[in-house]
Amino acid sequence: MVFVRSIGSVRSLRRFSSSGPLIQTGDVLRENRVFSDEDVRAYSKVSHDTNPLHFDSEHARALGFEDRLVHGMLVASLFPRIISSNFPGAVYVSQSLQFKLPVYVGEEITGEVQATNIRKLRDKSFVKLATKCFKKGELLVIDGEALAILPSLARE
Amino acid sequence: MVFVRSIGSVRSLRRFSSSGPLIQTGDVLRENRVFSDEDVRAYSKVSHDTNPLHFDSEHARALGFEDRLVHGMLVASLFPRIISSNFPGAVYVSQSLQFKLPVYVGEEITGEVQATNIRKLRDKSFVKLATKCFKKGELLVIDGEALAILPSLARE
Repeated sequence: MVFVRSIGSVRSLRRFSSSGPLIQTGDVLRENRVFSDEDVRAYSKVSHDTNPLHFDSEHARALGFEDRLVHGMLVASLFPRIISSNFPGAVYVSQSLQFKLPVYVGEEITGEVQATNIRKLRDKSFVKLATKCFKKGELLVIDGEALAILPSLARE
Repeated sequence: MVFVRSIGSVRSLRRFSSSGPLIQTGDVLRENRVFSDEDVRAYSKVSHDTNPLHFDSEHARALGFEDRLVHGMLVASLFPRIISSNFPGAVYVSQSLQFKLPVYVGEEITGEVQATNIRKLRDKSFVKLATKCFKKGELLVIDGEALAILPSLARE
């Protein structure tokens, strides 16, 4: 059974000996995504975030970047996307985000979510997750941690 | 000088004796916003987050909520929006988010960002911010902290 899913290409597959559909501590879910100029514009429109770093290459270069940046919070949206697509009805309790490296428009990003702790409390499951985004292989662009309540430990 | 800005109505104003445009420790910036059904759909489209909690009232009620939820990360986008609209070119270093209470479609949310620490390092300013969202007056829906690099301490 392949646990890792990807919207785009599957960069790295982790195979499990168990065929059980329940998430376990240590399990990793991944998704790749390229954020386009259209994505940046759509996100800017819905978030009202018109920071020139996302629209003006010259402004971005003047501040030491190579080019226009994708909004960090748009890149970070990969985490709830990965969680909720595997566990519909999942509720976010917390998320920490450390923006380590810039993400440029058009770069392929891999979002990775790893279950580090699972606790059942009555009919709910609290899952602690290490949440990371990478580019160009192993370059860590976002690091952080999330806590989510899953309606079930079984993946969709 | 009124430091607090608001897209919608200004709920609470904090007046400063100084007329200087530089942000100082303790300063608060606020913005109100109502997240509409259209916002939730637009955010879902750009984030690929189709959690039924955001689209299916029955699903949301079955999980103990009053109705469909606004994506927590969309509500949290108020923070970079407030920061970057006041300090264009601001770069996000980190953001922590604790989702305390659900936000329902149509509720008015107040985003609040307060400078808690400011450090100059060469030509850059590192500003630590307490980041909170409220609804119905004083109900805390998101709590957290951010660190941003501002190109200048002067507000736009």
